[in-house]
Amino acid sequence: MAPNIKAIRRLAEEVSLAGSRKLVIIHGGGSYGHPLAKEYDIVSGYSSPRQLVGFSKTHQAMINLNNIIIEAFLDSGVPVVSIAPSSFIVTDDRRIVDIDFNLIKRFIESGFVPVLYGDAVLDISRRFTILSGDQLSVRLAIELKAERLLFGVDVDGVYTANPNLAPDAKLIEDLSLSQIKGMTQIGEALSTDVTGGMIGKINEARDAVEADIKVQLINALKPGIIQSALKWNPVPGTWLRR
Amino acid sequence: MAPNIKAIRRLAEEVSLAGSRKLVIIHGGGSYGHPLAKEYDIVSGYSSPRQLVGFSKTHQAMINLNNIIIEAFLDSGVPVVSIAPSSFIVTDDRRIVDIDFNLIKRFIESGFVPVLYGDAVLDISRRFTILSGDQLSVRLAIELKAERLLFGVDVDGVYTANPNLAPDAKLIEDLSLSQIKGMTQIGEALSTDVTGGMIGKINEARDAVEADIKVQLINALKPGIIQSALKWNPVPGTWLRR
Repeated sequence: MAPNIKAIRRLAEEVSLAGSRKLVIIHGGGSYGHPLAKEYDIVSGYSSPRQLVGFSKTHQAMINLNNIIIEAFLDSGVPVVSIAPSSFIVTDDRRIVDIDFNLIKRFIESGFVPVLYGDAVLDISRRFTILSGDQLSVRLAIELKAERLLFGVDVDGVYTANPNLAPDAKLIEDLSLSQIKGMTQIGEALSTDVTGGMIGKINEARDAVEADIKVQLINALKPGIIQSALKWNPVPGTWLRR
Repeated sequence: MAPNIKAIRRLAEEVSLAGSRKLVIIHGGGSYGHPLAKEYDIVSGYSSPRQLVGFSKTHQAMINLNNIIIEAFLDSGVPVVSIAPSSFIVTDDRRIVDIDFNLIKRFIESGFVPVLYGDAVLDISRRFTILSGDQLSVRLAIELKAERLLFGVDVDGVYTANPNLAPDAKLIEDLSLSQIKGMTQIGEALSTDVTGGMIGKINEARDAVEADIKVQLINALKPGIIQSALKWNPVPGTWLRR
C-alpha cells in the first residue's frame, strides 16, 4: 500500500487555494481497498463466513486511506470531515437503495467538507458488496442537487483512441449521452482509456447528466487543473452532455 | 496517546472465547478522543470556525483508537465491524434524536459484531457536540431490545464508600433506581467511585433499567470477568435494578 502522498497533499492545497465553497469529496480504494476486496470477493456478496472478516478488513483499509487524505486536507486548512458510507448506506444488488442523505446536507450547512469513499457496504440481496466511489458520487450529486460533478482521473479525459498507442488520438471535449449510446463498439471505443475505470465512471455519470448536473472528467494528476476547475476556469477535459 | 494494547487484546480474546453471540461493543475515547475534544471545546457546541478542524481531528482520533480495537478483535477471530456514530447519529442539545438504527440490526443479522464509540457528532441546536459512549450504549440497548447491557469499568462496581480511602467500603451488588434517586447526597455518595465516569454511566443506565434491560457494571481490567459475564456466569459487580 503506497498512497501517492505528494499528489494527495498537492490536491489538498489546490482545494484550499480555490477558496471555500460547498463541496463534497469522494475517493476510491486505490491500493488500499481493492486487494482485500478482491481477496475476499466482497463484491459478489456472501458465500462464506470468512468473508465477514474480509468485509471488515476492506472497510478498515479504506478508513486508513481516508485518514491519510483527511490529515492532508486538515493540514491545508480545509475543514473536511470523514463520513463512512457503510455506516449509513445499504445497497440492493449493488445499487444504493433509498437512503436519507440529510446528514451530509447538515454537515455541509455546518461548514464542513464531507469526504466519503468507495466502501464495503451491506446489500439487501447479497448480504454485502462493494459500493464504488463512482456510483456514490453520482448519487450524492443528484441527492444534494449539485451544480457540478468533477471526476478527477489520471488522463486528460476521454480520447478518440488510446493516446498511448495512436499518435493521432484526440481528446473528446464534449461527449453526449447519445454518442455513448450510439457507439456500437462501446467497449472497444471506451477501453482506449488508460484507466480501466473510465467506462464505469461514464456509465454512472449518465444519471447525473440526465439530472442536469454539469459533469466533467479532468486530469487530477496535472498540477493546477483541479484548482482551476473549482474556480470555474476553463480546463482541458471531457464534458458529458445530454 | 497510549492505548492499553495488552488489555484490548485480552478483552478481544475473552469475547472470542465466550463464543459467538449477538453482541454490540461500544468504547469511549480514552487518551485519544478526550484531549482534542477538550482542546477545541467540542462538547459545548459551535462558537468559532476553528472548531471545525477540531471536530474532525477528534473524530479521526476516535477512528484511530477504534482501528486498534478492530484489529485486535479481528485477530481473535471476532467478526467485528466498525460503525461511525457521526456518520448516522445527530443529537439535539447533546441527546440523541430520533434515529434509524436498522443498519445496526442488519449488521448483527448479517453475522457481524458492530463496534461503535463515543464520537464528535452534529447537534441540531449546538451545531455539534460530543456523544458519550455511555449515552450511545444505553440508546442502542433500548433500540435493539437488548437482553443485557454490561458496562466494563476499571473497578468491581459501585462501592458504599471510596475503597481506596475507606477500608470498610463494600461493593454494592444490587443498586436500585430508588436508592440512587433517594440519596440526598448523590454526588458525595457516588463520587466515591474511582472512575469519574461512574455517575454518568449510572444516570444514563437508568433508561435501560426502566426498559427492563439487565444492567451490570463489572471490572473489565480483571482477566476473565468479561468472558464469564458473557457466558452468564455469576461475576462480582453491581446490578442496577428497578
